[in-house]
Formats: sequence, C-alpha cells, structure tokens
Amino acid sequence: MNDTSDHPESRPRRDSAASKRRLLAAAADEFAARGIAGARVDRIASAAQANKRLIYDYFGDKDGLFDAVMDANMDKVIGANPMDANDLPGYAGRWFDYSREHPDEMRLFDWARLELRLGPIALGKRTQSYRRRLAAIEAAQREGTVSTRLSPEQILMVIESLCVGWLSTTPPFLAAADKHTPEHRNPQPLLGNEEMSSRAREVIVDTVRRLIAS
Amino acid sequence: MNDTSDHPESRPRRDSAASKRRLLAAAADEFAARGIAGARVDRIASAAQANKRLIYDYFGDKDGLFDAVMDANMDKVIGANPMDANDLPGYAGRWFDYSREHPDEMRLFDWARLELRLGPIALGKRTQSYRRRLAAIEAAQREGTVSTRLSPEQILMVIESLCVGWLSTTPPFLAAADKHTPEHRNPQPLLGNEEMSSRAREVIVDTVRRLIAS
Repeated sequence: MNDTSDHPESRPRRDSAASKRRLLAAAADEFAARGIAGARVDRIASAAQANKRLIYDYFGDKDGLFDAVMDANMDKVIGANPMDANDLPGYAGRWFDYSREHPDEMRLFDWARLELRLGPIALGKRTQSYRRRLAAIEAAQREGTVSTRLSPEQILMVIESLCVGWLSTTPPFLAAADKHTPEHRNPQPLLGNEEMSSRAREVIVDTVRRLIAS
Repeated sequence: MNDTSDHPESRPRRDSAASKRRLLAAAADEFAARGIAGARVDRIASAAQANKRLIYDYFGDKDGLFDAVMDANMDKVIGANPMDANDLPGYAGRWFDYSREHPDEMRLFDWARLELRLGPIALGKRTQSYRRRLAAIEAAQREGTVSTRLSPEQILMVIESLCVGWLSTTPPFLAAADKHTPEHRNPQPLLGNEEMSSRAREVIVDTVRRLIAS
C-alpha cells in the first residue's frame, strides 16, 4: 500500500502552483509568437513539461488560457509604467524604452486586438489605467505644468500612438534606410537597430514636449 | 461528340480570371478577419464559389495566397495615399481618414507584421514607397517649407506612428471615456465613434503642424 499509484492525485495537487506558473509562462511565449489561432496547446504543455489536461482543468480552454496570460500581462505592463504627469516627455521616453525592450508583451496586446479577444478582467484593468492617467493629466493642467490647449485625452492619445505606433513602423524604416540591403529583405530583428531607435526616441520626447508647451 | 465533358479544362480556363479575382477578394476578407493561421482555405473557396483546388493551382498554398493579397493591398494603400510634402499636416489628416475608413486594409498589415509574413514583392513596394516619401520631405526641406530641425526620417516616423498607432489606441479611449459603460465591455465597432475620431484627427494634424514648424 506504499505504492503512490494508489493516490494518483497527490502529485498533481502538490505541484499544481508550479505547473500553473510554468503553463502561463510557456503560454505567454507561444501566444506572443503565434497568436491565439496559431498557438498549439500541445506545444504549450510540452514546453511547460506539464500534462495537456491541466490546461483544460485550470483554464477551461485555449481562449481561457489566453485570458489568463493577458490578465498577467496587463498587470505587468501597467505596473512597470507609472505615469508622471508633471514629466510627460520623460514618461513617453520611458514608455518607448519599455515597449522596445518587451516586444513580446506588446505583441500580446496586438494579438488581443486583432483577434478581438480581451477578457473582462484585463479590459477592466486597462480601462481603469486609462482613467487614472487621464485624471493625472487633468490635475497637471490645473497645476499649470501642462498646457490646456489640448484635452487630457488628446495628449494621452498622441503619447500612446507614438510609443505604440513606432513598433509598427520600424521595419519599413530599417529597410528603407539601409541602402545596401536589397529591397526585398525585411531586416530582422525588427527592433535591434540602436541608431534608429535613438532617433525615434529623440523625436518622440521632442514631440511630446512641444505638445504640452503653452 | 458535342458533350463538353470531353473538354473538362475548357470551363476553368475560360473562367479563370474571374475565379482568381473572386478568390483574392474572399481571401482578403478572410485574412483581414482571422490572420494567416486563423484563415481557412475551405471558407475562402466557398465564399468565392470556387473549387478549393484552384487556390493551390494559382497560389501554391495559403501563404502564397496571403502574399498575393498583400501585394494587391500594398498597391491599393500606396496608390490611395500620395504624399504632398508641402502639406504634411494635410497628408497626415488624409492618411488618418483613410486608415479609419479602411480598417481591413490596415489589419492586413498588422497580421503580416505579427505573423512575420511579407513577401518580397509587397516588401519591395513598401520600401520604395518609404524611400520616395523620405526624398519628398528632404526636397521640401531644401525648398524651406519644412523645418530642418528634424530628419526626414523622424518626421515621417511621427506621421506614420500617429496615424497607425491611433488604430491600436482607440478602443481603450472609448472604454475609458464612456463613464456609463461597464468597465468590462469593449466598445465595438472600435472606430465608429465620430466625436472621438474628430478629436484624434485634430490633434494629429496639429502635432504634425508643430513638428515641421521652424
């Protein structure tokens, strides 16, 4: 009766927190690379060294697993990028740096948008984060450190568009700038060009500075 | 011997241009909605009222079909948005309008970027379009209508980022702005809010005006 096979559930239960963590990490990699439709539950289970059935036990299905990944991703990105409304150019620069250094976290947002899949928890967190930041800009306008020429919404819109849009527009610039690269070769990795990134960062910070000046 | 079944290839040959056109149109819809991994060749053939085998005959495989769709999409988008380097704020405004009115064409670019699939023909056209536009901005700088404070690359980078980034950042603004919407409801359609679009357009045009001012 010492045979542990008599207690088949004891091991999964003991390891469940660790398995869940490994599954979420493997799923974040797989979804960032391939999106929801392209992700394979088998590949995630195998990368996490976990039984595929655990995915269904913990998360219901592939969509549920993506929601859990996005929920954690939302916490991470929001937590890492607090806004200082009295230094919006600096905030934009740091946000640019962050998005450049964490392309997978940004890709997860892109997939969620394209595949129209953002669960209620992640969505609620994102909405609250936007409201908080809009309120902070409004307060800075009352204190007089940010011009009132534009609405808080318009100011945040430009900052977000510049820092997010940059990710979409880098590859064509790299291709167009490199006169020695044949036109049909897409340079990869897309965000690896330090020189171009620093020029982009410079113009983003400068644009935000002019945006909020009186 | 008048039975046309003796000439089984005559009908496909006669209809091939029309079938190809219908397949490309159906594929553009399917890829814009679901991406490459999510697209189903069966659904495309059925929507085009064509035999699925024709897809393989004409385009090789699903990737080849996506390349053909992107090639046509690139021509359409580039052709519809000629740059007037002497009126960059107006160009940005029109580019914003276009991207808002043609979300499917923009989504195709997003999928190509995320799924790392842009064929040599589409890529070459895009690279040439960027080089042309950079040269036009440089010429406007020589003529004195655009400030030389920033490089042509930096100026185009901001315009593109604003007009493309806007598409990614609209949904959160809509959710955050609507105080009567529960936080967990993602407003759809994402680009349907006229009032917010007009505020976004206004700040984009204004930002580009300040960007190129001496």
